[in-house]
Amino acid sequence: MENLLPSILRHENISRIADGGVYITDRRALPFEKKEVFCPSWRECVSAIKEMVTQGGGPLEVALNAVLITSETHPDELEHAVRALSEARPTNTTMKREITGILKRYRAGEDMKTLVGEVFLRYDRAYDAMSDIGESLIRDGDGILTRCFPEHSFMLSVAKAMKNGKRIRVYVPETRPYLQGAHLTEPCLREIGAECYLITDAMNAHFMQSGDISLYLTASDLAFSNALVVNKTGTLSDAILSRHFGIPYYAFSVNPSPDDEIPVIEYREGEDLKHVGGCAIAASEAKALYPCFDVISPDFVSGVVHPEGIYEGNNRWNRHR
Amino acid sequence: MENLLPSILRHENISRIADGGVYITDRRALPFEKKEVFCPSWRECVSAIKEMVTQGGGPLEVALNAVLITSETHPDELEHAVRALSEARPTNTTMKREITGILKRYRAGEDMKTLVGEVFLRYDRAYDAMSDIGESLIRDGDGILTRCFPEHSFMLSVAKAMKNGKRIRVYVPETRPYLQGAHLTEPCLREIGAECYLITDAMNAHFMQSGDISLYLTASDLAFSNALVVNKTGTLSDAILSRHFGIPYYAFSVNPSPDDEIPVIEYREGEDLKHVGGCAIAASEAKALYPCFDVISPDFVSGVVHPEGIYEGNNRWNRHR
Repeated sequence: MENLLPSILRHENISRIADGGVYITDRRALPFEKKEVFCPSWRECVSAIKEMVTQGGGPLEVALNAVLITSETHPDELEHAVRALSEARPTNTTMKREITGILKRYRAGEDMKTLVGEVFLRYDRAYDAMSDIGESLIRDGDGILTRCFPEHSFMLSVAKAMKNGKRIRVYVPETRPYLQGAHLTEPCLREIGAECYLITDAMNAHFMQSGDISLYLTASDLAFSNALVVNKTGTLSDAILSRHFGIPYYAFSVNPSPDDEIPVIEYREGEDLKHVGGCAIAASEAKALYPCFDVISPDFVSGVVHPEGIYEGNNRWNRHR
Repeated sequence: MENLLPSILRHENISRIADGGVYITDRRALPFEKKEVFCPSWRECVSAIKEMVTQGGGPLEVALNAVLITSETHPDELEHAVRALSEARPTNTTMKREITGILKRYRAGEDMKTLVGEVFLRYDRAYDAMSDIGESLIRDGDGILTRCFPEHSFMLSVAKAMKNGKRIRVYVPETRPYLQGAHLTEPCLREIGAECYLITDAMNAHFMQSGDISLYLTASDLAFSNALVVNKTGTLSDAILSRHFGIPYYAFSVNPSPDDEIPVIEYREGEDLKHVGGCAIAASEAKALYPCFDVISPDFVSGVVHPEGIYEGNNRWNRHR
């Protein structure tokens, strides 16, 4: 499976242990520059996670490596390290759950290297299982829309579909303001040999009306067993339009939440909209709004793909049954 | 009416005759720099129109001024000038129709200065009439979504609504790739004192679901008497979502077309998506797509506002009856 992944999603290119510390690939510089941030201890790892050196599934891998080196060099700091890492990205409840669980079992006498290895392996297997399901949802000739950076399960689904001879195209919205689509998704798809096209964020309906888009697939920042999905702003627009145009929508979630409490949607600084790289794109006096996530009702979701199967939503244009 | 307009939409700030030639405000530099391009003759006016120094209703005003100075200094070149100006922006059929009409009447002996003055006055009156209708569609408390740069009728509708004591907010998508929302619309609205917020292009559904947006108003690149609208890519997404969320959508059109032949949608260079100002936002190898316009079925339009009234569409959440 690992060899089907685009390079930036391989473990060693997310975060690796060397020179007594943790190296983290700086995704903020991609695709223009490939560089790593070196963290001599868990403290620098916490800062790097806060500063968005890596994102998505990246912080979990950094945290696992940070916990491992701390257990080997400063075991007395382990409790403190786990707490600080957990708080580095409060909405990343997966990272917190995994490293807190490891700490408990380590305290009970288990071997840290084995524990960390088990978590890595569990996620690898989950991505493999989810992308088998994802692949089964893709048909020969599909035009697939995604949004933001959909990571492992999506990339593997596309790679497996191509390996199985399915001819597909992928439409990638640039995903303003941080441009994860342009910076991460498009280069990854191109690397694995997929036919892919960068579009602006509001071209979704255009390419649905033209018939070019026939399937919508995303990751999710949070998903529930009732098929409610929380994902990057813009996903709601795509999802409602998908149902309108008779297009199925599936979201991947490695850890769907059993409860159905909709979180308060985080707003980031509107100022973030007003610059692209070093270029100002709006007047300094302009007010801007930046809600980070959309909450998508199960009415607009065909299903949430998880490692064991699919939680079904109410977008009736589904493909899984 | 003129004094309700934001400054960049006043005649003298679009194009003016001075020093024996035509000055054109360079909208490409806004809002960061206020500068004019000087055109000594109609030839430089043609180039400036081609190079997008001005856009929207701007080329018509430039063409009228170019025709006027040519009639005064090189009347022998007038036929040639009208043809070249008409061809500078082939989809701007309004500009072609107006200057061709003027040429005919000038040849028949009418005074050019009077003819040009009449056209300016006719458009001023049309914008005034359309914005009276636009104002009547706005309710106290409205959150208005627009897209791209909706120009005179929209700005005047908002200004008149505020003058009548209606409290409103406007949501302005930045409108990638050329950023007309961030560069032109937001500064104009701020100048006339409107509460306005810049958002990214795919936040439309987000602020409809939250209840913040209650009305959608745009200009149109082309509109028909059957209420079919052609406008900037992204308008289709907004329009379908408007109907879904029970929000009325009206488009302004100073010259709705009586026929209903849908034009072939022009594609611009995908490369245009890959830079913002001087900053590259995508890998040089990335392929990008740039369809310029959306075709919006009357099913998603409440009405096309024209100088004499409203052509009714099928979005049933209308407000005009």
